[in-house]
This record gives sequence, structure tokens and C-alpha cells, in this order.
Amino acid sequence: MTEPLFEKVALIGIGHIGSSIAINIRERGLAAHVAISTRGEDTLRRAEELELGTSYHSDPADAVRNADLVILSVPVGASGPVMQSIAHALKPGAIVSDVGSVKGAVIAAMRPHVPKHAQFVPAHPLAGTENSGPDSGFLELFENRWTILTPLEETSEEASERLAALWRAFGARVERMSVEHHDLVLAIVSHLPHLIAYNIVGTAADLETVTQQEVIKFSASGFRDFTRIAASDPTMWRDVFLTNREAVLEMLGRFSEDLASLQRAIRWGDGDMLFDLFTRTRAIRRSIVEAGQDTAAPNFGRTPQSR
Amino acid sequence: MTEPLFEKVALIGIGHIGSSIAINIRERGLAAHVAISTRGEDTLRRAEELELGTSYHSDPADAVRNADLVILSVPVGASGPVMQSIAHALKPGAIVSDVGSVKGAVIAAMRPHVPKHAQFVPAHPLAGTENSGPDSGFLELFENRWTILTPLEETSEEASERLAALWRAFGARVERMSVEHHDLVLAIVSHLPHLIAYNIVGTAADLETVTQQEVIKFSASGFRDFTRIAASDPTMWRDVFLTNREAVLEMLGRFSEDLASLQRAIRWGDGDMLFDLFTRTRAIRRSIVEAGQDTAAPNFGRTPQSR
Repeated sequence: MTEPLFEKVALIGIGHIGSSIAINIRERGLAAHVAISTRGEDTLRRAEELELGTSYHSDPADAVRNADLVILSVPVGASGPVMQSIAHALKPGAIVSDVGSVKGAVIAAMRPHVPKHAQFVPAHPLAGTENSGPDSGFLELFENRWTILTPLEETSEEASERLAALWRAFGARVERMSVEHHDLVLAIVSHLPHLIAYNIVGTAADLETVTQQEVIKFSASGFRDFTRIAASDPTMWRDVFLTNREAVLEMLGRFSEDLASLQRAIRWGDGDMLFDLFTRTRAIRRSIVEAGQDTAAPNFGRTPQSR
Repeated sequence: MTEPLFEKVALIGIGHIGSSIAINIRERGLAAHVAISTRGEDTLRRAEELELGTSYHSDPADAVRNADLVILSVPVGASGPVMQSIAHALKPGAIVSDVGSVKGAVIAAMRPHVPKHAQFVPAHPLAGTENSGPDSGFLELFENRWTILTPLEETSEEASERLAALWRAFGARVERMSVEHHDLVLAIVSHLPHLIAYNIVGTAADLETVTQQEVIKFSASGFRDFTRIAASDPTMWRDVFLTNREAVLEMLGRFSEDLASLQRAIRWGDGDMLFDLFTRTRAIRRSIVEAGQDTAAPNFGRTPQSR
């Protein structure tokens, strides 16, 4: 048990990220009181069964009353309306944060509703699995992963630092970035990979020459790696693509150009071009393993018999 | 120890697949003698140090003399010349097989050189990791994975069945398929995924707005999943794309069409189209896990701290 960093924390939204935050606060003793609110009554009851918090509220405004820190863990598209509904109940000096995968659009939606007497510190933990819902949270989710803060010009240094301390207490590493740069970086390291994965799984499902059963049966030869992230939460990802549109379209444009040039190399039998690219990409994998961002075990360490 | 299935087996090529075959034969006692030959002198010496076989030969023709079974585990592009160089040394009734990821082109290259007195049974184990070389082989590689046989009209049923029995003894499941269908199925479940992975890693490496260091640092948010298969052997994969060109271009064409339609949906804010696709793809992931072809553990069961 660490010293509590906050007296009262309110968590609005208790899905994969929200529940992982709740478990971290509970297990590490980081707040005296955790108030939870979420839209669905069933989910709220489930959070209570899982003992994720101290109090449970259908109305998010009730949850945030007297809270020192409020974290919104809701789909990007819902952040504006939720912020609007809690604004009047925030106590002076309260810190408001979020975990959205897109920062520009979330800030644009939330910022107008943040009262002058509160501190808004936008944040994004680069963590998550393909699972969702209050049952999918776990203590180690943020360990050794990055959380990016994008403080605004009106955000006090003290508020940013208090939030950073909480994320560090979860085991995360914290980095600050401008809003624009965050959205560009995430478009390439996260949004485009998800889009490509969703797309190839869709393409495979629609074939008429190869059956869906065959795709499933023989998926271990490469395809299955893509299906993991293509199993991510549909609502969350719809919102990501709709709200980080410009950066995603920019990265997608580059990807398609590169793919067209690979296609040409295959058509014309340019083996050297293929060999050069395949050698370069191998080096990047090595750097990621060296940076501690993936396992060095072959096949991600999956057992061959995995059932 | 099982009863030996073959008196003498010759393995030509001793990389990731070849060495895994050697280990399986040795550990399960499936042949009395294993003769190994490979092009590189260093690799051959390494195979001997690892005690992968019984005898070691610089000339593949020496290795295949008196062998009941010869398996070529060489890059697709090398199979024709290797077959040509061993043809004269094959004993009557010898079974010749391979492990190539493409069957049409490999058969076209090997078939003219297979003597009338030998039996050619083309095969393809759908197994492998991103590692390569004689040190990367392991016993469990083929366990619960599929090996596809594509027997030709001149192949005897007995020869196919003897080879199938060997693969089953390795723990693999065996399926028969026509040459054309194999190349189409593999184009979607394996070749296209590898191409897409190589391509996105290349796109990310070439950006000027986001540094390569940032891509590596923040890769756990999706990107890293692609880098694993983009770390696969460059020579092997160059040959796959050059030799399964028609099927790969066909699948790539469909992928690009689908991607263009996703791009349009993002540009025009068609959230329903995105949501529908993302829901469909989630179901396919579930089927793959249920079919025992991937782990159900979140994040492929990687530990968050993976170093």
C-alpha cells in the first residue's frame, strides 16, 4: 500500500480501461474513495459485484461531487456530452482527465464545458487488449506501457504532475506531447494498424474462392496475428476513425502508395526491391524487442497447442 | 520412441523448418539414419554441432544416396536447381518431398527433374515462427498445425500415405488439397498478411513527421503485432511473392478495393459502415480461438513487462 494520492477519485465509464484504473487504485491504495458511474445499469451493477469502487452512481454528476480527480473512460464520441453533464458538480480545484485515443477531437468536445475552477489534463494510456467491459480489467495492464499527457495552455503544472504521479503509481511511464503530435503518432502506431487489421479480416471473410472455414482453419500461417486487434471494441474504434480523420487519412494515403509500389514490384518481378524492404523491416522488429515493448519469444511466446 | 517410419531420410536445407524436422525425427526415433546437406559450409557445421543428423554432406547428391525419403527445405526459388542436382542419385522408390509455401511454382520447377523411379509428394507445413536458421528449430513447431499435401496425378497413394504418417508423427494434422487451391488459400491466410505487415512497417519507417524512435517506443498500441511477421526471412518471402504472383495480386486487389471503401467511409463519416465491419471481424477472431488456432489469452498472453 502506497500513501493515497487523492482523497476521492470519480471514474466515469468502467470498461476495459476504467476497470483497470479502478483495480490499480484499489490494490495500490491510491485513493480513499472511488466513485463509479457508467451509462448502462447492468455494467454499473457488475462493477459493484466486482467491488471496483466505493460508491456507485447512475448519474455521473453524483459521482464527481467532491472528487479531487475525475477520469472519463468513455468512447471518444461520448466525452463531450459526459463532460457537459458533470461540469456543474465539479468542486473547485478538481482535476478532470480522460483516456481517449484521440486528443484533438476529445479536447475540442470537452474543453468548452470545463469550468474555470477545474483543471483539465488530457491523457492517453497506450495500453489495452482486445477485450472490453468491466470484467476485462487487470492490475498489470499499464505496467511498462506509456501514458501520454497533452496538457493545455490553461493546465497548471501542479495538476499535470499530480496526474502523472498517479499513472506512474500504476507502473506506467509518462511522456508529454502536443495534442497535434499525439494524434499523428497514434495514427501510425495504433489507428492505421487497427484499420489494416479490420480490413484484411473483412477481405478474407468476403472471398468466394476460399471458404471462411478454411481461413479460420489455416489462420496460424500469418492471418491470426491480425485478428487479435480486429477483435477490439467496435464502438471505441468507430469513434477513433471518425475523430482522428485527418491524421488517419494522411497515414493511410502513404500506406496505399507504398503498397501500390510493392504491388508493382511483385508484378514485374523486382526481387531486389522486395528483399531490401524485408531486410529493413526485420531491423525494426529487433529495436522494438530491445526497447522492451514486445517479447523476444518466437510467435509472441504462444504455445503451439494453444486452445 | 516410435517405430522408425523410414530407414534413411535426407534433409536438404537445414533452416527453421529443416532443423525442426531433424529434431522431430531424432527425438521421436522416426528414422535410423538422417543425412543432412545444405549450401553454406558454416550452416552445415552448425547442424553437426547441434547433432541434428547422422551424416553431413556438402554435396546434396551424396546425402540422398540410398535415402527412402528426401525432404527439400530450401527457399522456393532454389527447389528446381536442387532437385536437378540430386535426381541422378535417387534410389528406386525414393519419396521426394518439399516444404515450400507455394506449390504451383515449386512443382513446375521440380517435377521435370524427378526421375520416373521416384515418387514426388509436394507438401507444405503451415508452421514457422519469425526466426530462421538451424538454431531456431524446435520439437513442438508442428504440433496441432496443419500440413497440406498436394499429391500429383503420378504420385502413388502409398507414397502420400507414408509421408502423411511422418507429419502426423510430428504432431501435425494432415490435409490434402489441389495445387491451385493451396496457392489461393495460402495467398489470403499467409502471403497477403505478410505483405501488409512488411508494407506498414516500411511506411512507418519512412515518415518524416514521426520519428522511428517514436514508432518503436509507442509500438505496443497496435503496431508491434505487425512487426513480428515482418521480421520473417527475407529470402524466403521474396521468393514466395515472386512465385505465387497471380494469387497474391488477386488477393491484394481485393484488399485494396476494400481499403478504398473504408477510406471513403472515414472521409464521409459513415460510422455505421465502420461499426458493422468491426463487429463482423470480432466474430472471426472468436472462431479462430475456438478452432484451437490461437490463444484466448489477451495480448496473445504476452506479459506486459515483456523484455
